[in-house]
Amino acid sequence: MLSKNKAKFIKALQQKKFRAEHGCFVVEGKKSVLELISSPHFSIRTVVCTETFRKEHESVLKDKKLELLLCSLSELESISSFKTNNSVLAVVNMRGNYPPEKLQGLTLALDKISDPGNLGALIRTADWFGIKNIVASEETTELYNPKVLQASMGSFCRISVYYTKLEKYLQDVRIPIYAASMKGENIHNFRFEENCVLIMGNESHGVSNSLLRFIQKTVNVPSYGKAESLNVAMAAAIMCDHYRRILE
Amino acid sequence: MLSKNKAKFIKALQQKKFRAEHGCFVVEGKKSVLELISSPHFSIRTVVCTETFRKEHESVLKDKKLELLLCSLSELESISSFKTNNSVLAVVNMRGNYPPEKLQGLTLALDKISDPGNLGALIRTADWFGIKNIVASEETTELYNPKVLQASMGSFCRISVYYTKLEKYLQDVRIPIYAASMKGENIHNFRFEENCVLIMGNESHGVSNSLLRFIQKTVNVPSYGKAESLNVAMAAAIMCDHYRRILE
Repeated sequence: MLSKNKAKFIKALQQKKFRAEHGCFVVEGKKSVLELISSPHFSIRTVVCTETFRKEHESVLKDKKLELLLCSLSELESISSFKTNNSVLAVVNMRGNYPPEKLQGLTLALDKISDPGNLGALIRTADWFGIKNIVASEETTELYNPKVLQASMGSFCRISVYYTKLEKYLQDVRIPIYAASMKGENIHNFRFEENCVLIMGNESHGVSNSLLRFIQKTVNVPSYGKAESLNVAMAAAIMCDHYRRILE
Repeated sequence: MLSKNKAKFIKALQQKKFRAEHGCFVVEGKKSVLELISSPHFSIRTVVCTETFRKEHESVLKDKKLELLLCSLSELESISSFKTNNSVLAVVNMRGNYPPEKLQGLTLALDKISDPGNLGALIRTADWFGIKNIVASEETTELYNPKVLQASMGSFCRISVYYTKLEKYLQDVRIPIYAASMKGENIHNFRFEENCVLIMGNESHGVSNSLLRFIQKTVNVPSYGKAESLNVAMAAAIMCDHYRRILE
């Protein structure tokens, strides 16, 4: 059963500060929780679910010897951040923040991405295009924000996001570094190197000045209409697709 | 000054039913309201703004002879759907729901797109790629939902969205009709006709069975990773970009 104290604890994990203090976060919804259970990268502390969910997934849950707390749908709703996806949630230990062992293929570097929905969409897109590593500036919105996890549609289980000072990190990178920029070269005519880094800048301010000295080339998705800008995750998706199509 | 009754009226416009009943909707935030004021497609009923906004944009506001109601920032916040973008909002008359005069270039047909953020992102993307027309099934989420307008970043002022029964509408279309589908041909090898329609299906269920008989070819953005799916607006962005690059 879900105790009052536990319910209070889980609700408090909606706050970034509390998450950092306790080193854990909440994942909501059937799809994401099931992906997590089979993920080698995360360890689950507690699963809170309805009796229906438990019955449906009995074998998976038994195998893993998880702390399992049953509750009603309305109790679950009262501790959730979202209105939907509420047959289950899990309290999960944060991963260590380790740099990627090797930068292979395309690596995305995120410079102060501030919108959680965008970060989630970037992770999902990276997963679609088989990108293994994302390196994010420390100012980038937190990976464990419920909106990020939701928008990533489970892809956060597979893609590592390493938070660091980009200025320092990029100094030691020995493969070409590109950046998305409104003033960049038309991506349609651009040839990525197979191993490279692509920086996506902040939604309003673009790439930070402090990173410009690392950039070999800036690229852009050409516009044919009147929108002032393309969403950063859209631009990244088009660039990742371009990366794949020129290497095909 | 903003009366209590007017404030109540504006707040009620957050509900779809009330919007439909009164034929108007609310646009929030400086950027979108300024774009609206200069848009030939929409007529504004009322602008509610802070004194600071009025002073900054005095000439534009005078020119248009709008009903202008001043209020404090906290009053504005109390009638807004969002926490940010709150120096101004406008009550705007809905456009008539007219079919596009001529289908030229690429037309997007949206089949039961249910997420407001996705619809907004699709409109913004269409605007970036110079697409003039969107035709949407009647089940597609409503254009005037505040989340749609916000995600469109002002692009709803330029792109017409015509809601109709797609089954009926597509019957009379005389240009090629394509659709995005996980089982479709690799978009990288596909040549769009210059004038064509591209159907984007529902986020969970894809394109409706009832539309299959109109489709000449289905196309797909190839996957290289493990994500189950690509967000519908991402897929549309990559397909619109592809349309543009092959016609360059």
